[in-house]
Parts: sequence; structure tokens; C-alpha cells
Amino acid sequence: MELPLVLNTTVLSWIEEYFTKIGRAVPENIIRQAYFPAGAAILPNPAGTAPGCIIEKEGKTVVVLPGPPRELVPMFEKHVVPFLSKKVGREGVLKFRVLKLTGIAEYAAQERLQDLDSQENPRIGYIVKPGEVHIRVTAQGRDDSEAEQLVEEMVAKIEARLGEYIFACDDEEIEAKVGALLAARGYDIATAESCTAGLVAARLTEVPGSSEYFAGGVVAYANAVKEKVLGVSAAVLRERGAVSRAVAVAMAEGIKRLLGAAIGVGITGIAGPGGGTPQKPVGLVYIAVATPGGTEVREFHFPGRRFAVRQGAVNAALKMVHDFIVREKKQSGPGP
Amino acid sequence: MELPLVLNTTVLSWIEEYFTKIGRAVPENIIRQAYFPAGAAILPNPAGTAPGCIIEKEGKTVVVLPGPPRELVPMFEKHVVPFLSKKVGREGVLKFRVLKLTGIAEYAAQERLQDLDSQENPRIGYIVKPGEVHIRVTAQGRDDSEAEQLVEEMVAKIEARLGEYIFACDDEEIEAKVGALLAARGYDIATAESCTAGLVAARLTEVPGSSEYFAGGVVAYANAVKEKVLGVSAAVLRERGAVSRAVAVAMAEGIKRLLGAAIGVGITGIAGPGGGTPQKPVGLVYIAVATPGGTEVREFHFPGRRFAVRQGAVNAALKMVHDFIVREKKQSGPGP
Repeated sequence: MELPLVLNTTVLSWIEEYFTKIGRAVPENIIRQAYFPAGAAILPNPAGTAPGCIIEKEGKTVVVLPGPPRELVPMFEKHVVPFLSKKVGREGVLKFRVLKLTGIAEYAAQERLQDLDSQENPRIGYIVKPGEVHIRVTAQGRDDSEAEQLVEEMVAKIEARLGEYIFACDDEEIEAKVGALLAARGYDIATAESCTAGLVAARLTEVPGSSEYFAGGVVAYANAVKEKVLGVSAAVLRERGAVSRAVAVAMAEGIKRLLGAAIGVGITGIAGPGGGTPQKPVGLVYIAVATPGGTEVREFHFPGRRFAVRQGAVNAALKMVHDFIVREKKQSGPGP
Repeated sequence: MELPLVLNTTVLSWIEEYFTKIGRAVPENIIRQAYFPAGAAILPNPAGTAPGCIIEKEGKTVVVLPGPPRELVPMFEKHVVPFLSKKVGREGVLKFRVLKLTGIAEYAAQERLQDLDSQENPRIGYIVKPGEVHIRVTAQGRDDSEAEQLVEEMVAKIEARLGEYIFACDDEEIEAKVGALLAARGYDIATAESCTAGLVAARLTEVPGSSEYFAGGVVAYANAVKEKVLGVSAAVLRERGAVSRAVAVAMAEGIKRLLGAAIGVGITGIAGPGGGTPQKPVGLVYIAVATPGGTEVREFHFPGRRFAVRQGAVNAALKMVHDFIVREKKQSGPGP
């Protein structure tokens, strides 16, 4: 496929526009992003400067996409999937949903869905990520509504069995959902983290504008910090151990008090690989949420390694905050 | 390729061993991982239970690998690359190194290497990740030492031009390097984070055993937390602004004092998308490192979006701590 490179002036104007917007001259070596093989169909890049393209010649098709996943994935979904669907002339439509679970191992989730698992349409697939198990439900139908209905029926069955572990669906981000709930409720939040060491604070603040409801947090790794900064009593630390319900509660209530926040989160656990015992194995995490109405604490056992245990704990903590606000909203009625 | 599935007893024994080690019975649905198409060559999985395999039949080759990247990548590199190299009978060897940079945009790095960029051997490639630019140097030689020498010569040229931005090479993790230096030096470290909101603490504690040298940290998002918990003066916050050299220094020194640590890190900046001004644009970050010998502060401009700005700041902060300890070690001689 020897094809000459041709300057695409539309793409050039997009690039110029982008750099004008960020107040810089167009770097010389960026301009080559505007050259394409003659006859290529251009795919716009909503998330960066480099467009993609599709070249069809001599019965062959070449699809060129940008490398960064943040640019590649939306371009693929928006332009390449419809192109391919049309090309292969697929009959009917395919719909899917992804349920994201935390606090349960893949094989345990599979065991609970074993009877649904062997169906062809809708079909269930599992993807393991650190601290998460994704269940993907895919259905084929003659049209959108048939495919969607098949997906929704299966999703409802899975939710009935595993709902307590589901923290997000599809592209939903639990931190954005929690943020919106906090903002709507007028609550601010503060974190006291041991084994997750700042990850809950980091996730909450991934959301632009989170300074509206995120006050701050303490990473209390050493026991001295738990005592001195959060006011966890030395006696409780000694008698119950740093990884205990009582310490999670004292951390949540301590940070709530220290920063004068409406909600305090306390997390303590054993992320591994060291530090586990038969009584307190690696993966054991206590999460407490202190609220205006009292403090709730839960015990979790996260499967996997250090990274997975920590990510799982972050997801679970955000889900606890989410569920608390939703529950409280229901009890108190439609609110202001 | 219709092949019957056959139980592989070696794989079954690996699985049994794994579950014995973690003290659980083998879940029934895991046992199917021990069934393989007849004649398949098994690829052991050092990072999980599911092995891969290679099936060759009728002139076709199928390689089956586990899905999780943590299991897939090592298996691919250890077993599939040698298999493919042998299969295609490649002459000579290919070597590569990856240099990881922070605090510089891809196009700016490219501009500084433009004259080296057009060579075929060694070849330079760029990969953009959030908060990082990776420069990959690949060389082909008749044998290991020829290929390695070509790589090293090019790496030396790049280091001479861009060394101040390089925070890691290949699979090195800056947090592990910093951890080893802190442990060897007998220093502990504490963090005070605004825009990175716990990410530096989280990265430092990704390293198993980091409790030996990581004391704890404060996520000081709201100004009230900077004042009340870290002791940043209200006058400095008002006169210089929360994003300023002076506040970064006060945060680093404040957390060092609060937790009685040898080293304190302070970070304040504008991660975006909102909050930027012509004087203080999105991407501006001040990082201070308070040490037994004084406090150093630097100004950075990180390219990209919120997530990239925050990741870039984490890498740069860890590099500053790393460089401080290395410099101090050199000055003070071989030490204890």
C-alpha cells in the first residue's frame, strides 16, 4: 500500500485551534500529525491532537489510532466499532453492561452465578482487576430494545444475588457518585487511612471540584500518628490491636472531630504481604464511617495481593459512604 | 483444530499446592484450569493459578495466556518471546531500555532529541503516560554485548540532555528506590499534600515493608487544614496564596515537625481543570523537601490534564527525595 502523504488542512486547523486555546505556538514536530496517506478517512480525536484514520485499498483495511488509552478507547468506540459493524454487516444489535464488584473473589462470584453462567444469550464474562471483579453481561437482539431487555433481566438476577458487592456499573465512577451526593447533601468528608495510606483521599479528589466537599485527611501509618493526630487511645491500640473494629471507629471519629467534617472515614487493615496471622490474615480490613447520626463499621476480607487489597478497600469505603447517604436520604424524605 | 481436553496432573498439583498454601480448599470451578487441549505445551504461571499454553497444529500456532496483566506480561516475556524468536529464526539480538521522564511534555522532549530521532539503529520511540513520558531506546546487534553497547551509548546521550527529568529506568520503581535509600540511611519520611491529595503517601506505601520508614501524612486540601493541622500561617496563605513556594515550604516543615520525621514533603499546586489563572496556570506545582540540613523547593509545570498533573507531581516529589539522599550520601562519604 504505497500511498503518498498529504497535508490535511482540516486537521491542521484543529491542531492550531488546540494550541491557540492553551496559549502556545504550534510546535513544529506536531504538524506532521496533519499528514495522512492519500484517500484516508479521518477520525477526529476529542481527547488530544492526533487524529486517527481508516485506509481502504486493494481489499485491505488499515485502521490507525493514537497510542494513549485515554485517546484510543473513545475513538475506537465512537468510530471504529460502527465502521466494523457496518463492514461485517452484522444482523441485529449487541448490548452489554458491566457490573463492578469489590470484596469478593472471582471464583466466589462465579460459584454464585454458576447456573446463569452457561447461557449463550445473554452471556456472562468475568474480568479480574486489582481490588475489583467485573461481570460483563452481553446480549444480542433484533433491535436495541430487545437486546437491552435481555441485558437488564440478567443484570437484575445478578444484582439480587451479589448486590452487596456491586459498587459501580459501566463507566460510573463511585467517587463521582459519592461526590455528587455529598455536594447535594451539603456534607463535607474527611479521611483517616492506615493500610490504604491516602488512596481514598486521592480517589475522592480525582473528581474536579472535589474541594467543595473534601476537607482533608490523615495518613496514620505509624501507631504514634493514630494516637497523636487522631486521638486513638493507646489502651485501645494495645488491647485490640491496630487492625480492629475499635481502632477503625476511633480513626473515623477522630478525623471527623479534628477537621470538623460531617463525615469521617477510618480504615485499618493488613495489606500484606507481611503482617498476617491466622486470626488476622492478609486481606482483613475494617472500615468505619462516622456520620452525624452515628458510626458504622464493617469487616472485609479482600482477595489478592497488597495492591488489590488496597484498591478493594478504597472501593468498599466509597461504597459504604455512598450507601449511607442514599439510605439517609430515603429515610429523611426528598430533602431540601 | 478440534482437540479433546485432557486433565494435566502437573497443573492440578500446582493448583492444589497454591490453595494449600493460602489455607483453602480448591474451589471446584478452578479445577477446569488444569484441562488443556491434547498436545499443548504448558506455560507455568508464576503470579497466579491459571497456566498458559501453546498449541501447534496443521501449521498454525495458538498461544493462550491469562487475562490479568500482572500474570500475562511476565508469562509473555518469559515464555512467548523466546518461543517466537526461535520460531522466526531472528538473526542477532534486540535489546532495549526505557527512560521515564516527568515534568516535560512529549513534544518538548522530542525537540531536544530531534537529531537523534531519525536513526534506525538504535531507534528512539516515545510513549506518553499520565504524568510520564517514556523514551524507549531499541538496538539490534550481532550479539548481546553489541546490542547493549548501542543502547547504552544512546542512553548516555539522552541522559546528558534530559537527565533532570528522568526519574526511573526500565522496571525500576522510584518509590522502591527511595524506600531503600531511606531505610539504609535510617531516615523516616512524612508527607503534606494538597493537589496530590495522598498520592505520594500511597505510592511510598506500595512498597511492602514501607512502615519501616513511612511515618504518615496529612492531606491538606482545605486551607483550614493547612493552618490548623500543619501550622501554615494564615498571613502567608493570604499574601502568597495557597499555591506558592512559601506554602510548599511551610507544609513540608510543618509535617516534619508534627510527626517528628527526618524528612517532610510538601506539595501544593493547581491540578485543574478549574482554578488556573495567567499567573498561576493549571499544571503549576510547588514541591518542597524539608531535611535535617534545610529545605529545598522547586517549581514545576506539568503538561496534561488533572490526572496527569497529579501523577507527574508524585514522580517529581519522589525524585526530589531520591536526589537529596543520593547527594547527601555523596557529600558525607560512605556512611555507616
